Amino acid sequence: MSHGLFISFEGIDGAGKSTHVEALAQAFRDAGRAVVLTREPGGTPLAEQLRQLALTAPMDPLTEALLMFAARRDHLGQVIEPALARGDVVLCDRFTDATFAYQGAGRGFDRQVLAQLERWVQAVDALPGGTLRQPHLTLWFEVPPEVAAQRLAGARAPDRFESQPLAFFQRVAQGYAERAEAEPARFARLQADQPREAVWAQALAAVRQRGWLP
Amino acid sequence: MSHGLFISFEGIDGAGKSTHVEALAQAFRDAGRAVVLTREPGGTPLAEQLRQLALTAPMDPLTEALLMFAARRDHLGQVIEPALARGDVVLCDRFTDATFAYQGAGRGFDRQVLAQLERWVQAVDALPGGTLRQPHLTLWFEVPPEVAAQRLAGARAPDRFESQPLAFFQRVAQGYAERAEAEPARFARLQADQPREAVWAQALAAVRQRGWLP
Ligand SMILES: Nc1ncnc2c1ncn2[C@@H]1O[C@H](COP(=O)(O)OP(=O)(O)OP(=O)(O)O)[C@@H](O)[C@H]1O
Ligand SMILES: Nc1ncnc2c1ncn2[C@@H]1O[C@H](COP(=O)(O)OP(=O)(O)OP(=O)(O)O)[C@@H](O)[C@H]1O
Ligand SMILES: [Mg+2]
Ligand SMILES: [Mg+2]
Repeated sequence: MSHGLFISFEGIDGAGKSTHVEALAQAFRDAGRAVVLTREPGGTPLAEQLRQLALTAPMDPLTEALLMFAARRDHLGQVIEPALARGDVVLCDRFTDATFAYQGAGRGFDRQVLAQLERWVQAVDALPGGTLRQPHLTLWFEVPPEVAAQRLAGARAPDRFESQPLAFFQRVAQGYAERAEAEPARFARLQADQPREAVWAQALAAVRQRGWLP
Repeated sequence: MSHGLFISFEGIDGAGKSTHVEALAQAFRDAGRAVVLTREPGGTPLAEQLRQLALTAPMDPLTEALLMFAARRDHLGQVIEPALARGDVVLCDRFTDATFAYQGAGRGFDRQVLAQLERWVQAVDALPGGTLRQPHLTLWFEVPPEVAAQRLAGARAPDRFESQPLAFFQRVAQGYAERAEAEPARFARLQADQPREAVWAQALAAVRQRGWLP
Protein backbone atom coordinates (compact mmCIF):
# COMPACT_ATOMS: atom_id res chain seq x y z
CA MET A 1 0.00 0.00 0.00
CA SER A 2 1.22 3.43 -0.92
CA HIS A 3 1.12 6.18 1.67
CA GLY A 4 1.87 8.86 -0.85
CA LEU A 5 -0.30 11.95 -0.97
CA PHE A 6 -1.59 13.57 -4.13
CA ILE A 7 -2.80 17.16 -3.75
CA SER A 8 -3.95 19.25 -6.70
CA PHE A 9 -4.26 23.03 -6.85
CA GLU A 10 -7.23 24.35 -8.83
CA GLY A 11 -8.92 27.62 -9.65
CA ILE A 12 -9.13 30.20 -12.43
CA ASP A 13 -6.11 32.19 -13.66
CA GLY A 14 -4.92 34.53 -10.91
CA ALA A 15 -6.67 32.64 -8.12
CA GLY A 16 -3.42 32.12 -6.20
CA LYS A 17 -2.48 28.49 -6.94
CA SER A 18 1.18 29.05 -7.73
CA THR A 19 1.52 31.48 -4.82
CA HIS A 20 0.82 28.74 -2.29
CA VAL A 21 2.21 25.57 -3.86
CA GLU A 22 5.82 26.22 -2.82
CA ALA A 23 4.83 27.15 0.75
CA LEU A 24 2.91 23.90 1.13
CA ALA A 25 5.89 21.99 -0.30
CA GLN A 26 8.10 23.58 2.39
CA ALA A 27 5.61 22.70 5.13
CA PHE A 28 5.69 19.04 4.07
CA ARG A 29 9.49 19.04 3.85
CA ASP A 30 9.66 20.52 7.35
CA ALA A 31 7.52 17.60 8.45
CA GLY A 32 10.09 15.20 6.93
CA ARG A 33 8.24 14.28 3.73
CA ALA A 34 9.75 14.04 0.26
CA VAL A 35 7.83 16.35 -2.08
CA VAL A 36 7.35 16.31 -5.86
CA LEU A 37 6.24 19.67 -7.24
CA THR A 38 4.68 19.40 -10.67
CA ARG A 39 2.08 20.94 -12.97
CA GLU A 40 -0.37 20.25 -15.77
CA PRO A 41 -0.39 20.26 -18.64
CA GLY A 42 3.24 19.20 -18.41
CA GLY A 43 5.40 17.51 -15.82
CA THR A 44 7.36 15.22 -18.17
CA PRO A 45 9.47 15.99 -21.26
CA LEU A 46 6.77 14.54 -23.55
CA ALA A 47 3.93 16.28 -21.71
CA GLU A 48 5.78 19.61 -21.77
CA GLN A 49 6.16 19.26 -25.54
CA LEU A 50 2.44 18.52 -25.84
CA ARG A 51 1.70 21.54 -23.62
CA GLN A 52 3.77 23.68 -25.95
CA LEU A 53 1.89 22.38 -29.00
CA ALA A 54 -1.50 22.86 -27.33
CA LEU A 55 -0.63 26.43 -26.32
CA THR A 56 0.74 27.49 -29.72
CA ALA A 57 -0.81 25.49 -32.57
CA PRO A 58 -4.46 26.22 -33.40
CA MET A 59 -6.46 22.99 -33.16
CA ASP A 60 -10.01 21.81 -32.72
CA PRO A 61 -11.34 21.05 -29.21
CA LEU A 62 -11.27 17.26 -29.63
CA THR A 63 -7.64 17.32 -30.80
CA GLU A 64 -6.81 19.46 -27.78
CA ALA A 65 -8.64 17.15 -25.38
CA LEU A 66 -6.79 14.11 -26.76
CA LEU A 67 -3.44 15.88 -26.37
CA MET A 68 -4.28 17.00 -22.82
CA PHE A 69 -5.15 13.48 -21.75
CA ALA A 70 -2.14 11.98 -23.57
CA ALA A 71 0.06 14.39 -21.60
CA ARG A 72 -1.77 13.45 -18.39
CA ARG A 73 -1.29 9.74 -19.03
CA ASP A 74 2.44 10.25 -19.46
CA HIS A 75 2.61 12.45 -16.37
CA LEU A 76 0.76 9.89 -14.26
CA GLY A 77 2.87 6.98 -15.46
CA GLN A 78 6.26 8.67 -15.37
CA VAL A 79 5.99 11.00 -12.38
CA ILE A 80 2.87 10.85 -10.22
CA GLU A 81 2.44 7.08 -9.77
CA PRO A 82 6.15 6.40 -9.09
CA ALA A 83 6.18 9.24 -6.54
CA LEU A 84 3.08 7.94 -4.78
CA ALA A 85 4.55 4.42 -4.77
CA ARG A 86 7.63 5.83 -2.99
CA GLY A 87 5.35 7.47 -0.44
CA ASP A 88 6.13 11.03 -1.58
CA VAL A 89 3.82 14.03 -1.47
CA VAL A 90 2.83 15.14 -4.99
CA LEU A 91 1.71 18.75 -5.30
CA CYS A 92 0.27 19.37 -8.75
CA ASP A 93 -0.61 22.83 -10.11
CA ARG A 94 -3.83 21.94 -12.00
CA PHE A 95 -5.10 18.46 -12.89
CA THR A 96 -8.22 16.96 -14.52
CA ASP A 97 -10.68 19.34 -12.84
CA ALA A 98 -9.05 22.10 -14.89
CA THR A 99 -9.80 20.21 -18.11
CA PHE A 100 -13.46 19.93 -17.15
CA ALA A 101 -13.56 23.59 -16.10
CA TYR A 102 -11.68 25.12 -19.08
CA GLN A 103 -12.34 22.80 -22.05
CA GLY A 104 -15.70 21.57 -20.76
CA ALA A 105 -17.54 24.39 -18.99
CA GLY A 106 -15.46 27.26 -20.40
CA ARG A 107 -15.39 26.27 -24.06
CA GLY A 108 -18.41 23.99 -24.21
CA PHE A 109 -16.62 20.78 -25.17
CA ASP A 110 -18.61 17.56 -24.62
CA ARG A 111 -18.13 16.57 -20.98
CA GLN A 112 -19.07 12.95 -21.63
CA VAL A 113 -16.04 12.66 -23.89
CA LEU A 114 -13.88 14.16 -21.14
CA ALA A 115 -15.38 11.76 -18.59
CA GLN A 116 -14.55 8.75 -20.79
CA LEU A 117 -10.99 10.00 -21.31
CA GLU A 118 -10.69 10.49 -17.55
CA ARG A 119 -11.82 6.89 -16.93
CA TRP A 120 -9.24 5.52 -19.36
CA VAL A 121 -6.30 7.72 -18.42
CA GLN A 122 -6.73 7.64 -14.66
CA ALA A 123 -7.33 3.88 -14.47
CA VAL A 124 -4.15 2.70 -12.77
CA ASP A 125 -3.19 -0.97 -12.44
CA ALA A 126 -2.09 -0.58 -8.83
CA LEU A 127 -5.53 0.62 -7.73
CA PRO A 128 -8.32 -1.78 -6.67
CA GLY A 129 -10.79 -2.77 -9.43
CA GLY A 130 -12.28 0.10 -11.31
CA THR A 131 -10.99 2.82 -8.97
CA LEU A 132 -9.58 5.89 -10.70
CA ARG A 133 -6.52 7.79 -9.63
CA GLN A 134 -7.75 11.11 -8.29
CA PRO A 135 -6.06 13.62 -6.02
CA HIS A 136 -6.54 12.78 -2.34
CA LEU A 137 -7.24 16.47 -1.85
CA THR A 138 -7.98 19.31 -4.24
CA LEU A 139 -7.32 22.80 -2.94
CA TRP A 140 -9.82 24.90 -4.82
CA PHE A 141 -8.87 28.56 -4.80
CA GLU A 142 -12.23 30.18 -5.31
CA VAL A 143 -12.18 33.80 -6.29
CA PRO A 144 -14.58 36.04 -8.22
CA PRO A 145 -13.33 36.38 -11.82
CA GLU A 146 -13.18 40.19 -11.44
CA VAL A 147 -10.80 39.87 -8.48
CA ALA A 148 -8.56 37.41 -10.33
CA ALA A 149 -8.54 39.71 -13.36
CA GLN A 150 -7.56 42.68 -11.18
CA ARG A 151 -4.69 40.69 -9.66
CA LEU A 152 -3.37 39.65 -13.06
CA ALA A 153 -3.70 43.19 -14.38
CA GLY A 154 -1.50 44.45 -11.51
CA ALA A 155 -2.40 48.03 -10.66
CA ARG A 156 -4.64 48.46 -13.69
CA ALA A 157 -8.41 48.77 -13.48
CA PRO A 158 -10.61 45.74 -14.28
CA ASP A 159 -12.39 47.52 -17.15
CA ARG A 160 -9.26 46.86 -19.19
CA PHE A 161 -10.73 43.35 -19.57
CA GLU A 162 -13.47 42.82 -22.11
CA SER A 163 -16.76 41.37 -20.94
CA GLN A 164 -16.34 38.20 -23.01
CA PRO A 165 -13.20 36.90 -21.25
CA LEU A 166 -14.88 37.61 -17.92
CA ALA A 167 -17.91 35.56 -18.99
CA PHE A 168 -15.53 32.78 -19.96
CA PHE A 169 -13.98 32.73 -16.48
CA GLN A 170 -17.43 32.77 -14.95
CA ARG A 171 -18.24 29.57 -16.87
CA VAL A 172 -14.90 28.09 -15.80
CA ALA A 173 -15.67 28.92 -12.16
CA GLN A 174 -19.06 27.26 -12.58
CA GLY A 175 -17.30 24.19 -14.01
CA TYR A 176 -15.13 23.95 -10.90
CA ALA A 177 -18.23 24.32 -8.71
CA GLU A 178 -19.87 21.36 -10.46
CA ARG A 179 -16.83 19.15 -9.99
CA ALA A 180 -16.71 20.14 -6.32
CA GLU A 181 -20.38 19.34 -5.83
CA ALA A 182 -19.86 15.90 -7.37
CA GLU A 183 -16.94 15.07 -5.04
CA PRO A 184 -17.31 17.20 -1.91
CA ALA A 185 -14.95 15.09 0.22
CA ARG A 186 -12.07 15.58 -2.21
CA PHE A 187 -12.46 19.35 -2.54
CA ALA A 188 -11.39 21.95 0.03
CA ARG A 189 -13.01 25.21 -1.03
CA LEU A 190 -10.78 28.12 -0.09
CA GLN A 191 -12.01 31.71 -0.03
CA ALA A 192 -9.14 32.92 -2.14
CA ASP A 193 -10.23 36.55 -2.41
CA GLN A 194 -8.92 37.12 1.11
CA PRO A 195 -5.36 38.39 1.84
CA ARG A 196 -2.50 35.95 1.16
CA GLU A 197 -2.00 35.02 4.84
CA ALA A 198 -5.69 34.24 5.30
CA VAL A 199 -5.73 32.06 2.17
CA TRP A 200 -2.61 30.23 3.32
CA ALA A 201 -4.21 29.59 6.73
CA GLN A 202 -7.21 27.98 5.02
CA ALA A 203 -4.98 25.79 2.82
CA LEU A 204 -2.92 24.66 5.82
CA ALA A 205 -6.07 23.96 7.84
CA ALA A 206 -7.46 21.73 5.07
CA VAL A 207 -4.26 19.64 5.13
CA ARG A 208 -4.01 19.53 8.93
CA GLN A 209 -7.66 18.59 9.27
CA ARG A 210 -6.84 15.41 7.33
CA GLY A 211 -3.98 14.65 9.72
CA TRP A 212 -1.32 15.05 7.02
CA LEU A 213 0.59 17.84 8.79
CA PRO A 214 1.01 18.49 12.49
CA MET B 1 -22.55 16.91 -52.02
CA SER B 2 -18.85 16.23 -52.30
CA HIS B 3 -17.58 14.05 -55.13
CA GLY B 4 -14.16 13.75 -53.63
CA LEU B 5 -12.58 10.34 -53.32
CA PHE B 6 -10.70 9.07 -50.31
CA ILE B 7 -8.46 6.05 -50.91
CA SER B 8 -6.21 4.60 -48.22
CA PHE B 9 -3.21 2.32 -48.69
CA GLU B 10 -2.75 -0.37 -46.07
CA GLY B 11 -0.54 -3.36 -45.33
CA ILE B 12 2.48 -4.29 -43.24
CA ASP B 13 5.87 -2.63 -43.63
CA GLY B 14 7.38 -3.49 -46.99
CA ALA B 15 4.06 -4.54 -48.53
CA GLY B 16 4.42 -2.02 -51.37
CA LYS B 17 2.11 0.85 -50.35
CA SER B 18 4.50 3.70 -51.09
CA THR B 19 5.61 2.05 -54.32
CA HIS B 20 2.14 2.39 -55.84
CA VAL B 21 0.75 5.57 -54.30
CA GLU B 22 2.52 7.93 -56.70
CA ALA B 23 1.56 5.86 -59.76
CA LEU B 24 -2.09 5.99 -58.77
CA ALA B 25 -1.81 9.73 -58.21
CA GLN B 26 -0.48 10.09 -61.75
CA ALA B 27 -3.30 7.97 -63.17
CA PHE B 28 -5.88 10.25 -61.52
CA ARG B 29 -4.07 13.38 -62.71
CA ASP B 30 -4.03 11.96 -66.24
CA ALA B 31 -7.79 11.59 -65.89
CA GLY B 32 -8.05 15.29 -64.98
CA ARG B 33 -8.49 14.98 -61.22
CA ALA B 34 -6.74 17.08 -58.57
CA VAL B 35 -4.90 14.76 -56.19
CA VAL B 36 -3.79 15.20 -52.57
CA LEU B 37 -1.05 12.75 -51.56
CA THR B 38 -0.74 12.35 -47.83
CA ARG B 39 0.15 9.88 -45.09
CA GLU B 40 -0.51 8.87 -41.51
CA PRO B 41 0.54 9.42 -38.89
CA GLY B 42 1.25 12.89 -40.22
CA GLY B 43 -0.08 15.01 -43.04
CA THR B 44 -0.19 18.35 -41.16
CA PRO B 45 2.54 20.27 -39.29
CA LEU B 46 0.97 19.35 -35.93
CA ALA B 47 0.40 15.71 -36.91
CA GLU B 48 3.96 15.39 -38.22
CA GLN B 49 5.25 16.64 -34.87
CA LEU B 50 3.06 14.10 -33.08
CA ARG B 51 4.35 11.39 -35.45
CA GLN B 52 7.89 12.34 -34.52
CA LEU B 53 7.09 12.15 -30.80
CA ALA B 54 5.32 8.80 -31.18
CA LEU B 55 8.21 7.31 -33.15
CA THR B 56 10.97 8.50 -30.82
CA ALA B 57 9.70 8.96 -27.24
CA PRO B 58 8.93 5.79 -25.28
CA MET B 59 5.31 5.94 -24.08
CA ASP B 60 2.56 3.64 -22.94
CA PRO B 61 0.04 2.28 -25.45
CA LEU B 62 -2.84 4.51 -24.32
CA THR B 63 -0.71 7.65 -24.61
CA GLU B 64 0.30 6.53 -28.08
CA ALA B 65 -3.29 5.83 -29.13
CA LEU B 66 -4.40 9.28 -27.94
CA LEU B 67 -1.58 10.93 -29.90
CA MET B 68 -2.36 8.91 -33.03
CA PHE B 69 -6.01 9.93 -32.97
CA ALA B 70 -5.17 13.55 -32.12
CA ALA B 71 -2.94 13.60 -35.21
CA ARG B 72 -5.72 11.98 -37.25
CA ARG B 73 -8.27 14.53 -36.10
CA ASP B 74 -6.00 17.36 -37.18
CA HIS B 75 -5.26 15.65 -40.50
CA LEU B 76 -8.95 15.12 -41.21
CA GLY B 77 -9.93 18.67 -40.33
CA GLN B 78 -7.02 20.47 -41.99
CA VAL B 79 -6.35 18.35 -45.09
CA ILE B 80 -8.69 15.46 -45.86
CA GLU B 81 -12.11 17.07 -45.37
CA PRO B 82 -11.23 20.30 -47.21
CA ALA B 83 -9.83 18.24 -50.12
CA LEU B 84 -12.94 16.06 -50.30
CA ALA B 85 -15.13 19.17 -50.16
CA ARG B 86 -13.23 20.53 -53.19
CA GLY B 87 -13.85 17.25 -55.02
CA ASP B 88 -10.20 16.18 -54.95
CA VAL B 89 -8.83 12.65 -54.81
CA VAL B 90 -7.12 11.99 -51.47
CA LEU B 91 -4.56 9.18 -51.47
CA CYS B 92 -3.47 8.38 -47.94
CA ASP B 93 -0.56 6.09 -47.06
CA ARG B 94 -2.06 4.36 -43.96
CA PHE B 95 -5.16 5.41 -42.01
CA THR B 96 -7.21 4.04 -39.09
CA ASP B 97 -6.98 0.40 -40.17
CA ALA B 98 -3.25 0.65 -39.45
CA THR B 99 -3.98 1.75 -35.87
CA PHE B 100 -6.22 -1.27 -35.34
CA ALA B 101 -3.65 -3.56 -36.98
CA TYR B 102 -0.49 -2.24 -35.25
CA GLN B 103 -1.60 -0.90 -31.86
CA GLY B 104 -4.60 -3.22 -31.57
CA ALA B 105 -3.76 -6.61 -33.06
CA GLY B 106 0.04 -6.19 -33.08
CA ARG B 107 0.54 -4.85 -29.58
CA GLY B 108 -2.63 -6.05 -27.91
CA PHE B 109 -4.06 -2.64 -27.07
CA ASP B 110 -7.80 -2.61 -26.22
CA ARG B 111 -9.70 -2.43 -29.50
CA GLN B 112 -12.84 -1.07 -27.85
CA VAL B 113 -10.87 2.02 -26.84
CA LEU B 114 -9.66 2.37 -30.44
CA ALA B 115 -13.22 1.95 -31.71
CA GLN B 116 -14.47 4.73 -29.41
CA LEU B 117 -11.66 7.02 -30.52
CA GLU B 118 -12.49 6.22 -34.15
CA ARG B 119 -16.15 7.15 -33.56
CA TRP B 120 -15.19 10.49 -32.02
CA VAL B 121 -12.42 11.47 -34.40
CA GLN B 122 -14.06 10.38 -37.65
CA ALA B 123 -17.43 11.90 -36.85
CA VAL B 124 -17.56 14.77 -39.33
CA ASP B 125 -20.22 17.48 -39.26
CA ALA B 126 -20.70 17.39 -43.02
CA LEU B 127 -21.71 13.71 -42.99
CA PRO B 128 -25.31 12.53 -42.48
CA GLY B 129 -26.26 11.67 -38.87
CA GLY B 130 -23.89 9.32 -37.15
CA THR B 131 -21.95 8.35 -40.28
CA LEU B 132 -18.20 8.18 -39.86
CA ARG B 133 -15.64 9.39 -42.33
CA GLN B 134 -13.98 6.30 -43.76
CA PRO B 135 -11.99 5.82 -46.95
CA HIS B 136 -14.20 5.10 -49.94
CA LEU B 137 -11.70 2.41 -50.86
CA THR B 138 -8.85 0.77 -48.98
CA LEU B 139 -6.17 -0.86 -51.08
CA TRP B 140 -4.88 -3.64 -48.86
CA PHE B 141 -1.47 -4.84 -49.93
CA GLU B 142 -1.41 -8.35 -48.53
CA VAL B 143 1.93 -10.03 -48.35
CA PRO B 144 3.44 -12.75 -46.13
CA PRO B 145 5.54 -11.09 -43.38
CA GLU B 146 8.63 -13.06 -44.48
CA VAL B 147 8.39 -11.61 -47.98
CA ALA B 148 7.98 -8.06 -46.66
CA ALA B 149 10.90 -8.52 -44.27
CA GLN B 150 13.12 -9.73 -47.13
CA ARG B 151 12.19 -6.67 -49.21
CA LEU B 152 13.07 -4.28 -46.39
CA ALA B 153 16.26 -6.09 -45.34
CA GLY B 154 19.19 -3.74 -45.84
CA ALA B 155 17.02 -1.09 -47.50
CA ARG B 156 17.01 1.19 -44.42
CA ALA B 157 17.44 1.17 -40.64
CA PRO B 158 14.32 -0.09 -38.84
CA ASP B 159 12.31 2.36 -36.68
CA ARG B 160 10.61 1.55 -33.37
CA PHE B 161 7.81 -0.36 -35.15
CA GLU B 162 9.90 -2.13 -37.75
CA SER B 163 12.39 -3.66 -35.31
CA GLN B 164 9.78 -6.19 -34.18
CA PRO B 165 9.82 -9.99 -34.48
CA LEU B 166 8.05 -11.73 -37.37
CA ALA B 167 5.29 -12.88 -34.99
CA PHE B 168 4.39 -9.22 -34.46
CA PHE B 169 3.82 -8.68 -38.19
CA GLN B 170 1.79 -11.88 -38.34
CA ARG B 171 -0.54 -10.41 -35.70
CA VAL B 172 -0.66 -7.12 -37.63
CA ALA B 173 -1.60 -8.98 -40.81
CA GLN B 174 -4.35 -10.76 -38.87
CA GLY B 175 -5.57 -7.38 -37.62
CA TYR B 176 -5.90 -6.14 -41.19
CA ALA B 177 -7.76 -9.32 -42.12
CA GLU B 178 -10.31 -8.68 -39.36
CA ARG B 179 -10.93 -5.11 -40.46
CA ALA B 180 -11.36 -6.33 -44.05
CA GLU B 181 -13.86 -8.99 -42.97
CA ALA B 182 -15.87 -6.37 -41.10
CA GLU B 183 -16.08 -4.05 -44.14
CA PRO B 184 -15.62 -6.18 -47.27
CA ALA B 185 -17.02 -3.54 -49.65
CA ARG B 186 -14.46 -0.96 -48.60
CA PHE B 187 -11.44 -3.25 -48.88
CA ALA B 188 -9.73 -4.36 -52.10
CA ARG B 189 -7.42 -7.21 -51.17
CA LEU B 190 -4.33 -7.19 -53.41
CA GLN B 191 -1.96 -10.13 -53.69
CA ALA B 192 1.08 -7.98 -53.09
CA ASP B 193 3.69 -10.75 -53.13
CA GLN B 194 3.49 -10.75 -56.92
CA PRO B 195 5.85 -8.71 -59.15
CA ARG B 196 5.35 -4.93 -59.12
CA GLU B 197 3.51 -4.80 -62.46
CA ALA B 198 1.05 -7.50 -61.38
CA VAL B 199 0.36 -5.67 -58.09
CA TRP B 200 -0.16 -2.40 -59.95
CA ALA B 201 -2.62 -4.09 -62.32
CA GLN B 202 -4.67 -5.29 -59.35
CA ALA B 203 -4.68 -1.82 -57.77
CA LEU B 204 -5.76 -0.18 -61.02
CA ALA B 205 -8.47 -2.80 -61.55
CA ALA B 206 -9.94 -2.12 -58.10
CA VAL B 207 -10.24 1.58 -58.92
CA ARG B 208 -11.59 1.05 -62.45
CA GLN B 209 -14.11 -1.49 -61.21
CA ARG B 210 -15.64 1.31 -59.13
CA GLY B 211 -15.83 3.55 -62.20
CA TRP B 212 -13.35 6.08 -60.83
CA LEU B 213 -10.84 5.74 -63.67
CA PRO B 214 -11.42 4.93 -67.31
N1 LIG C 1 -4.52 36.46 -1.69
C1 LIG C 1 -4.01 37.28 -2.60
N2 LIG C 1 -4.30 38.61 -2.59
C2 LIG C 1 -3.81 39.42 -3.52
N3 LIG C 1 -3.00 39.05 -4.52
C3 LIG C 1 -2.68 37.74 -4.59
C4 LIG C 1 -3.17 36.80 -3.65
N4 LIG C 1 -2.68 35.58 -3.97
C5 LIG C 1 -1.94 35.75 -5.09
N5 LIG C 1 -1.92 37.05 -5.45
C6 LIG C 1 -1.25 37.64 -6.62
O1 LIG C 1 -2.11 37.40 -7.72
C7 LIG C 1 -1.38 37.03 -8.87
C8 LIG C 1 -1.81 35.64 -9.34
O2 LIG C 1 -1.44 34.67 -8.36
P1 LIG C 1 -0.89 33.22 -8.81
O3 LIG C 1 0.15 33.36 -9.86
O4 LIG C 1 -0.54 32.46 -7.58
O5 LIG C 1 -2.24 32.68 -9.44
P2 LIG C 1 -2.47 31.31 -10.22
O6 LIG C 1 -3.71 30.74 -9.67
O7 LIG C 1 -1.24 30.46 -10.16
O8 LIG C 1 -2.71 31.84 -11.68
P3 LIG C 1 -2.41 31.10 -13.10
O9 LIG C 1 -3.51 30.09 -13.26
O10 LIG C 1 -2.52 32.22 -14.09
O11 LIG C 1 -1.03 30.48 -12.99
C9 LIG C 1 0.10 37.10 -8.46
O12 LIG C 1 0.59 38.36 -8.83
C10 LIG C 1 0.04 36.95 -6.96
O13 LIG C 1 1.13 37.56 -6.33
N1 LIG D 1 5.94 -6.24 -55.87
C1 LIG D 1 7.16 -6.06 -55.40
N2 LIG D 1 8.10 -6.99 -55.55
C2 LIG D 1 9.35 -6.82 -55.04
N3 LIG D 1 9.73 -5.74 -54.35
C3 LIG D 1 8.83 -4.77 -54.15
C4 LIG D 1 7.51 -4.88 -54.66
N4 LIG D 1 6.84 -3.76 -54.31
C5 LIG D 1 7.70 -2.99 -53.61
N5 LIG D 1 8.91 -3.60 -53.51
C6 LIG D 1 10.09 -3.11 -52.81
O1 LIG D 1 9.90 -3.43 -51.45
C7 LIG D 1 10.33 -2.37 -50.60
C8 LIG D 1 9.14 -1.91 -49.78
O2 LIG D 1 8.17 -1.29 -50.63
P1 LIG D 1 7.37 -0.01 -50.16
O3 LIG D 1 8.30 1.00 -49.59
O4 LIG D 1 6.47 0.42 -51.25
O5 LIG D 1 6.53 -0.66 -48.98
P2 LIG D 1 5.58 0.05 -47.95
O6 LIG D 1 4.36 -0.78 -47.88
O7 LIG D 1 5.40 1.48 -48.28
O8 LIG D 1 6.41 -0.10 -46.61
P3 LIG D 1 6.41 0.85 -45.31
O9 LIG D 1 5.16 0.53 -44.56
O10 LIG D 1 7.62 0.39 -44.55
O11 LIG D 1 6.49 2.27 -45.77
C9 LIG D 1 10.89 -1.31 -51.53
O12 LIG D 1 12.27 -1.47 -51.60
C10 LIG D 1 10.22 -1.59 -52.85
O13 LIG D 1 11.01 -1.19 -53.95
MG1 LIG E 1 0.01 29.66 -11.66
MG1 LIG F 1 5.83 3.26 -47.23
